[in-house]
Amino acid sequence: MSASHLSFVLGGARSGKSRHAESIITAYPAPWSYIATAQALDGEMQERIAEHRARRDDGWETLDVPFELAGALSSVETGRPVLIDCLTLWLTNVMLADRDVEAEIRGLAEVLASPRGPWVVVANEVGLGIVPDNALARAFRDHAGRLNQTVAAAADSVILTVAGLPMRVK
Amino acid sequence: MSASHLSFVLGGARSGKSRHAESIITAYPAPWSYIATAQALDGEMQERIAEHRARRDDGWETLDVPFELAGALSSVETGRPVLIDCLTLWLTNVMLADRDVEAEIRGLAEVLASPRGPWVVVANEVGLGIVPDNALARAFRDHAGRLNQTVAAAADSVILTVAGLPMRVK
Amino acid sequence: MSASHLSFVLGGARSGKSRHAESIITAYPAPWSYIATAQALDGEMQERIAEHRARRDDGWETLDVPFELAGALSSVETGRPVLIDCLTLWLTNVMLADRDVEAEIRGLAEVLASPRGPWVVVANEVGLGIVPDNALARAFRDHAGRLNQTVAAAADSVILTVAGLPMRVK
Repeated sequence: MSASHLSFVLGGARSGKSRHAESIITAYPAPWSYIATAQALDGEMQERIAEHRARRDDGWETLDVPFELAGALSSVETGRPVLIDCLTLWLTNVMLADRDVEAEIRGLAEVLASPRGPWVVVANEVGLGIVPDNALARAFRDHAGRLNQTVAAAADSVILTVAGLPMRVK
Repeated sequence: MSASHLSFVLGGARSGKSRHAESIITAYPAPWSYIATAQALDGEMQERIAEHRARRDDGWETLDVPFELAGALSSVETGRPVLIDCLTLWLTNVMLADRDVEAEIRGLAEVLASPRGPWVVVANEVGLGIVPDNALARAFRDHAGRLNQTVAAAADSVILTVAGLPMRVK
Repeated sequence: MSASHLSFVLGGARSGKSRHAESIITAYPAPWSYIATAQALDGEMQERIAEHRARRDDGWETLDVPFELAGALSSVETGRPVLIDCLTLWLTNVMLADRDVEAEIRGLAEVLASPRGPWVVVANEVGLGIVPDNALARAFRDHAGRLNQTVAAAADSVILTVAGLPMRVK
C-alpha cells in the first residue's frame, strides 16, 4: 500500500464498517485523525457517537466536521492516516441544511481524488431495500448512491462489509 | 462469450447497474436494442428516463415495452445485442395492472431460457432492508426476489453492482 | 468439512437462503434436524411455513423453537446435522416478548461457539435499505446486525445468497 491511498469501506447498518475501517488505519503508525461527521442531535445519536469514541483509545485525534469535509481534508497534514466516518451522515447534514448537494459532492470528490496519506472513507449502502414511500427519502437514496459511486471510482480499494466481514469489491 | 448469452445485472438504487449493462452490450458491434420497461407516469420517472436516454447515443434502437416483454423478446432479430432495463419496473407494471404475476414470470422465463443473441437483463435487488409495513410492498418484494432467482438461474453470468463496481456472483 | 462445523447463510428476502442452507445439510447422511423459529401468527406466515415444510421430505425431524434456541441446540444429538431457520425470526420473537435481547444473544453465541455437528444457521440481512422511520425498526435492525456479526465471527464459513446464488464471504 503506497503512502497516498484512498480506501472506501461500504456497508449496511451494524455491518462492522467502522471497525473494519479502523483496522485499516491502525495498521499505520499513530497518530491517526478521525473526522467525525455525526451531529449529536438526539439521545440515540449521542449513544452511537459515544460507543464509537469509546472504541478509539489514545493515538486518535478527533475532529468534528458535520459540513466542511472538503476543507477539513485539505488541511490535514500530508502523510497522516485519516478516517472519515461517515459520508452518509455528512450527506444527511448537507441535505437537511439545504445546501447545494451536487456542488458539495463535486467539491469533496476533487479532494478525494488526491489523497495526501492513507485515507479511509466509510459510508452506508442504503439502496438495497424497497423504494421508499416519500420523495425526500428517494432523493436521499439517489444522492447517496451517486456519492458512493463517485468515491468508489476514485478509491484504490473498495470493501463491502457483510456481518462484520470484508468483501473486496475493488 | 458465445453469440447467445444471457447476462443478469442486479444492483441497488443508483448502483450503476444500467451503466454496467450498457458497457456489456456496447462491447458488441452496433446496432443494439434497448427494451425500456419504464412508464413515464410522473415527472420523477420522466426525468430518470430522459437521463438514461441521454446517455445512449446513435447505434441504439429503443423499444418501449411496459408489459409484453416475452413477446418483444420473441420478435427481436437473432444475433442482435439486447438490453432489457429493467425487470423490476416491468414487475411493478404487471402487479399494478393486476395481471397474473406467476404466469407472466413463467412466460418470461421461457423466453430468457433461450436467448438468441447477447442479451442483458437489469434488475433491482430490493430484499435487503427491513420488512416493509404494508402487505403490497411485501408481496412485491417476494415476487421480485423470486423473479431475480429465476433469471439468475437461467443466466450465463450474474453481476451484482455495488457503488458502480461489478461483483461477479455467477 | 470437519464433523463439527458452523455455516452461516445470510441473505435478503426471497434470496434462496433456506434452499441453499438445506443443500448444505442434505449433503450429510440423514436424519437431519430442522429447528424452525417461525410462529404462525397469521395467514401469511402460515403460508410461508407450509411452503418451506413442503420442500423438506422424509429424513427431516422438525422442532418448533420460537424462543429457547440455545437450550434446543444444547440438547441435539452430537454429530447430527442441524439447520436453524431463521435467526432473524427468533430475534423478532425475543424482542416482541420483551426478553433481554443482549443476554439472549450472549447465550446463543456461547452454544454456537462449540457446534457438535454440522450446523447451519440462516439469517436475513436487513441493514442495506434506508434508515427506518420508527425507533423499534431501527433497534431491530441494530440488534439483527450485531447478531449477524456475532454468528459470522463464530462461523467456519459464511455465505451471502444473492438471487438464489451463493457468494462466499468467509
